[in-house]
Amino acid sequence: MHRRSLLWAVLSAAGAAFAASRAEAATETPATGKLKVVYHLNDLDKVSFVLGNIQNHFEGVGGPEHVTIALVVHGPALRAFHAASANPDVSKKVGQFSKTGMEIAACGNTMKSQNVTVKELLPGFVAADKGGVVRIAELQSQGYLYLRP
Amino acid sequence: MHRRSLLWAVLSAAGAAFAASRAEAATETPATGKLKVVYHLNDLDKVSFVLGNIQNHFEGVGGPEHVTIALVVHGPALRAFHAASANPDVSKKVGQFSKTGMEIAACGNTMKSQNVTVKELLPGFVAADKGGVVRIAELQSQGYLYLRP
Amino acid sequence: MHRRSLLWAVLSAAGAAFAASRAEAATETPATGKLKVVYHLNDLDKVSFVLGNIQNHFEGVGGPEHVTIALVVHGPALRAFHAASANPDVSKKVGQFSKTGMEIAACGNTMKSQNVTVKELLPGFVAADKGGVVRIAELQSQGYLYLRP
Repeated sequence: MHRRSLLWAVLSAAGAAFAASRAEAATETPATGKLKVVYHLNDLDKVSFVLGNIQNHFEGVGGPEHVTIALVVHGPALRAFHAASANPDVSKKVGQFSKTGMEIAACGNTMKSQNVTVKELLPGFVAADKGGVVRIAELQSQGYLYLRP
Repeated sequence: MHRRSLLWAVLSAAGAAFAASRAEAATETPATGKLKVVYHLNDLDKVSFVLGNIQNHFEGVGGPEHVTIALVVHGPALRAFHAASANPDVSKKVGQFSKTGMEIAACGNTMKSQNVTVKELLPGFVAADKGGVVRIAELQSQGYLYLRP
Repeated sequence: MHRRSLLWAVLSAAGAAFAASRAEAATETPATGKLKVVYHLNDLDKVSFVLGNIQNHFEGVGGPEHVTIALVVHGPALRAFHAASANPDVSKKVGQFSKTGMEIAACGNTMKSQNVTVKELLPGFVAADKGGVVRIAELQSQGYLYLRP
């Protein structure tokens, strides 16, 4: 097993164990402590980059138990997450992220325009029924910091 | 009248009625309640997308009376809002947004470099005299959440 | 001396004098007062634009003593800051910004992938050892507002 993959697997297991406690994280985000971050992804040509950023984020803070990350996808980028056509690396990362308890949300408006349901996306996705941008604003209002690579 | 347009017109009217009260919205943005959001637009090829995002945002929360949105435009994207050359869909959306009381600000530095005045932009624009980026920071300091699609 | 350059030189000198006091800026960012802003740069084709935005930001608020700006660079954009190949305008702006005490951080992961050390970047850069995205989240948790042009 590749060393980095091993590290990731260990971190993912730890993350899963802490998923419940993460759900109760305080709304306020003190400078020292566990931060909450929402990643905003809509450019199709940014999909691999942003997934790599999220992996680096988890590793940079010492694993998923040290940060709560959410990913909201809307617009052209969502095409990369259709289960029928997703590339293996995208599928793998979404699977790994999902195991940590991370919210991975697809914009309801985009799903309609791309004629897919949440069941036709990669496993781990949930629907943002009010729309991706509304969900991002909601998460920020709950103390999530915003990153749009 | 198209059903979606009708919904929009009704929502717009409601929005106009609430414009005054919106101006007094509290600086803090609780998780439950009316949020304030600033959209940041500078890429010319993102103009239609961002205007669509804003329309979806209004519709996703149930209309302009449930969210306060500001739009700050700077850089190449401002070219799409020159009154003399704007396309009909852009003109229409700016007109609709403007009726809700939304702040639509053009960067003063960009106006100079594009050799236009605020009067030569689509109706509804105001000038951000200190610059678009300064205005976005100011709005965030007043409790606006940030969205940069 | 070009008028704008002169203004900049004066502002830079003032900024240097205030650098120490800036370091003690409060975490909270009231609507009136000195704001803290982090610029996020990862697109190579946005380098000149973002550096211009930062210069406009300083000038728009009356100089570096009226705002605390940080710049975090990761991904492809970092190539523009390799000392051996940086263009003169990029070098000049980084030098000017650095004199104001501004944090200019390079993502540690990106440096590895681009096979450079912080000493091989333009003078003024520091390393974000946990990664650029982690640093941006940290700065936001310390009250920095976020701008991603």
